[in-house]
Amino acid sequence: MGNNKNAFYAQSGGVTAVINASACGVIETARKHKDKIANVYAGRNGIIGALTEDLIDTSQEPDDAIAALRYTPSGAFGSCRYKLKGLDENRAEYERLIEVFKAHNIGYFFYNGGGDSADTCHKVSQLSETLGYPIQAIHVPKTVDNDLPVTDNCPGFGSVAKYIAVSTREASYDVCSMAKTSTKVFVIEVMGRHAGWIAAAGGLVADKDNDIPVLILFPEVEFDQDKFLKKVKENVEKYEYCTVVVSEGAKWPDGKFLAEQDTRDAFGHAQLGGAAPVVANMIKDALGYKYHWAVADYLQRSARHIASGTDVEQAYAVGKAAVEMAIAGESAVMPTIVRVSDDPYRWEIGKANLEEVANVEKMMPAEFISGDGFGITEACRRYLQPLIAGEDYPPYVGGMPQYIRLKNAAVEKKLSTAFELG
Amino acid sequence: MGNNKNAFYAQSGGVTAVINASACGVIETARKHKDKIANVYAGRNGIIGALTEDLIDTSQEPDDAIAALRYTPSGAFGSCRYKLKGLDENRAEYERLIEVFKAHNIGYFFYNGGGDSADTCHKVSQLSETLGYPIQAIHVPKTVDNDLPVTDNCPGFGSVAKYIAVSTREASYDVCSMAKTSTKVFVIEVMGRHAGWIAAAGGLVADKDNDIPVLILFPEVEFDQDKFLKKVKENVEKYEYCTVVVSEGAKWPDGKFLAEQDTRDAFGHAQLGGAAPVVANMIKDALGYKYHWAVADYLQRSARHIASGTDVEQAYAVGKAAVEMAIAGESAVMPTIVRVSDDPYRWEIGKANLEEVANVEKMMPAEFISGDGFGITEACRRYLQPLIAGEDYPPYVGGMPQYIRLKNAAVEKKLSTAFELG
Repeated sequence: MGNNKNAFYAQSGGVTAVINASACGVIETARKHKDKIANVYAGRNGIIGALTEDLIDTSQEPDDAIAALRYTPSGAFGSCRYKLKGLDENRAEYERLIEVFKAHNIGYFFYNGGGDSADTCHKVSQLSETLGYPIQAIHVPKTVDNDLPVTDNCPGFGSVAKYIAVSTREASYDVCSMAKTSTKVFVIEVMGRHAGWIAAAGGLVADKDNDIPVLILFPEVEFDQDKFLKKVKENVEKYEYCTVVVSEGAKWPDGKFLAEQDTRDAFGHAQLGGAAPVVANMIKDALGYKYHWAVADYLQRSARHIASGTDVEQAYAVGKAAVEMAIAGESAVMPTIVRVSDDPYRWEIGKANLEEVANVEKMMPAEFISGDGFGITEACRRYLQPLIAGEDYPPYVGGMPQYIRLKNAAVEKKLSTAFELG
Repeated sequence: MGNNKNAFYAQSGGVTAVINASACGVIETARKHKDKIANVYAGRNGIIGALTEDLIDTSQEPDDAIAALRYTPSGAFGSCRYKLKGLDENRAEYERLIEVFKAHNIGYFFYNGGGDSADTCHKVSQLSETLGYPIQAIHVPKTVDNDLPVTDNCPGFGSVAKYIAVSTREASYDVCSMAKTSTKVFVIEVMGRHAGWIAAAGGLVADKDNDIPVLILFPEVEFDQDKFLKKVKENVEKYEYCTVVVSEGAKWPDGKFLAEQDTRDAFGHAQLGGAAPVVANMIKDALGYKYHWAVADYLQRSARHIASGTDVEQAYAVGKAAVEMAIAGESAVMPTIVRVSDDPYRWEIGKANLEEVANVEKMMPAEFISGDGFGITEACRRYLQPLIAGEDYPPYVGGMPQYIRLKNAAVEKKLSTAFELG
């Protein structure tokens, strides 16, 4: 086996349309450096795969299968929502990781996720010091929420933003056609429980060639029902219709989510609705307008068919850069995207220390939200526009996208011990 | 002006991703036959434009703007939900149409819509006999519901079917990635209040390369809650996850829609939910699985960005054929799509008499639904697959599709009388 060690790669948290493009960047780059990285073992279902010694042997996948990850949405190896506790709280988890890493000669740890995962990655990077196991841990950024610090933007976000902007423009054309005798208000609910980055993409629906009335309800802006209904009415009176983009994180002044309806069904069960039907019903009740509403949910983050070209390229680039950083001897870092210029858009790969990244949430700057609280500013448009630019279509056969499903062959277990997840 | 008469064109009912492709086919073909058709006047907001003498002069639009209709979703001239009553019930409406047609020298009537519109078109075609006004009326088929008779399929349907199949496959990949520790069930609600054609497209999510567990709830199949929950459980136990496609028209055994929840909000208002949250909550209550749900609503029928190539081509072709039929002296007919073979898929334009079309709904054949009631048969797959085949991407600038917004300049009014809509 020589000096070269194996690498562990895992996907963490909510998946995206382009997280597999990062996996592609990691694996393809590792394959070019066999002298340094013998093999990439992927965790089946994220870090759980490491804890339970359930590793996937990516060397079993031919080059064209790995290349196909670039255009396949979701997490090809499975993801998980599982946060490692602190070393003090659950030392056993870290000892188990070391046991598995040692058994499989793992010297590199690539963790593909958001803020929580950056924290986990940071803790793993400290295993050398804390438990004496030599490992280089590099975090590969990914989150549709766009809330990682240091980096200009997060892989995964651009594609969701593009999906919301494109779909909402299309639906706005639809409601505009129907408004004379039928639907006058279209409400779409988008993701983003803490920050309004995704909702802000709704601001791209209108532009100089598309005078479309769109109101955005941001989590950052306390919901003012009277002001909102007045705006809807103004738009319908001027344009005959109005489009509303509501974030799942939009809140009443008392801090309660709009989506938390106090409703019960016939059996007395609490009903979980969305924010969109609440807003739509509110408009109907107050103004009498016929409405339609949509909840995009997973469709928005898995829509690889309308992924942003910029996003795909950057997702691949951070995967590639992570491996290059590891080979250069780095640890406890994360490749970042550095914006060099807005127009023409130019970017390059930078580097953040994980201690700057872990557990820090980047909120949307106040100057990105327009004065009335229902739209985006020019500064926000300049920020967002390049992130949705470019199309990167997957291949189709018979009308359907041909996404890859890997073999995901298991690496033979070397340990006789099982591990109970906490 | 010579012998050539003007044509009236209008869009009716719910719009689609490709109804403007039909408009493009009508106008481009008319422009090639100036000797027969002087000008195409479009009704602003459908037939209402004719009744109120609110006509759009399409000759004001340059050729490239008309060509751009081919890739622009929604109804470029505005649509309406307005059904002409019978001649006995509202003779004034027909007399008004004749008044407007006469004032603008209109000899051709092209009506682009579904079943109700075919009926209107049929009535207009009879004006020669009933009220002595010579006019040729041709119906241009359009409906996402795919429920027009005689024609093999309806322009508009293929693109919705493709959107649902593609999006649901993508979301299924997503939930599959998350299932180990998080979401196990994804529910998507699709259109189709009377027939399950759109829901059936969910059956294309799985294929020989994609072993994805999908359950479909059709309007045609009485909802059996126990059987359904058992199936969900089986799928989750076998695959770790399950996707559910529920038609907005799915019904309880007593005939009530699943979407009609008997729920009240804190103020005692009835809450209009969708079928998707009802199904999702039902699964959570019975089986405890974490879920996500989406309601695609207008997104599905306006998604020109993922339109079916077959659909775009056919939508254009029926528009073109309608004009050619008119020039050939036909009236009271509708161009149809005739399937010549499944594989390779070949089709040609046929012709139906409007009396065969008006007010007849084509339901999904029973042999298209699998024995257990939750899937589609091979016959259904053979029918659907060619309809979603081919991609036809709109042009993009800066990451956004460049849909056309026409000038829609008004034709000068010639009548001094107004008309009150009934």
